[in-house]
Amino acid sequence: MNQGANKAVRLLGLDPGLQHTGWGMVESAGSRLRHLGDGVISTDAAMPLAERLCTIYRGLAELLGNWQPDEAAVEHTYVNKNPGAALKLGQARGVVLLAPALLGIPVAEYQAMEVKRAVVGTGHADKVQVAAMVRRLLPGAIIRRADASDALAVAICHASHRSTKLALARGYQPA
Amino acid sequence: MNQGANKAVRLLGLDPGLQHTGWGMVESAGSRLRHLGDGVISTDAAMPLAERLCTIYRGLAELLGNWQPDEAAVEHTYVNKNPGAALKLGQARGVVLLAPALLGIPVAEYQAMEVKRAVVGTGHADKVQVAAMVRRLLPGAIIRRADASDALAVAICHASHRSTKLALARGYQPA
Repeated sequence: MNQGANKAVRLLGLDPGLQHTGWGMVESAGSRLRHLGDGVISTDAAMPLAERLCTIYRGLAELLGNWQPDEAAVEHTYVNKNPGAALKLGQARGVVLLAPALLGIPVAEYQAMEVKRAVVGTGHADKVQVAAMVRRLLPGAIIRRADASDALAVAICHASHRSTKLALARGYQPA
Repeated sequence: MNQGANKAVRLLGLDPGLQHTGWGMVESAGSRLRHLGDGVISTDAAMPLAERLCTIYRGLAELLGNWQPDEAAVEHTYVNKNPGAALKLGQARGVVLLAPALLGIPVAEYQAMEVKRAVVGTGHADKVQVAAMVRRLLPGAIIRRADASDALAVAICHASHRSTKLALARGYQPA
């Protein structure tokens, strides 16, 4: 048996936004999941854009230093709104992808539908269903903010994809 | 007379793109402009997005360390294409705004029309006219790449806006 499959790893889920970037940290060991922390990095809309991006980056750098996650995962938001909104979100998303990558932390990306499928079981779940399942999968966690809940959903999705990969890898090992 | 107005400053113009980020460094002293350098930071489309953003960031960090610019300016590209393209550009743009801002370098933003007006005299100039004027305003510079020329145009625009502001500030000073 591959010992590595049950080794506890810290996974950071991130839900980027220029106004609010949600984060959620879970510990994953085999099929067990444990809530470690969550929160939101908010920026002041009255500040210049470059300053707001610095606030997001510094918030993430502190978070990464404090929690030392092994891997990170970011939701790949599908933007069907106007290009201006997409550009705005993209700017925050670029910084959110950069911060862990600069430290050598692998960053996975998941489509919103993949996150919903991993957490609820269907890609067409609504936000309320996702939030309810996040609470059920992480008992004891008190999650106050929707952005933090979304970030935890991404972390759970990544944990699920990792363990599937590890199980497959184990299956293929010579007996 | 305000001595500060003719003090030479180094201005870095940036034209963000996930594939190619152009940069151009000029020295501005009063109404005099001097070309210091230009180039393009390119990323490998086969690499994961987070790695490509790291390449842009590290390229900029090296550039900022080598040239120590006093101020930076970034073009605010208007995206009229699909939201997917805007998200992509936004991600590169977020990193491009972040890199100088993290070092405390002021970052100005200019609309594409403002850049054209500052360089050519009309906001409706085409790319060829802008490139020709950049070459005329920076004699002796050998500019090989369109992305670098666009970045120099942003730096020239910023130099022009700075000197207007300084001239206005001088006018308002008590005699």
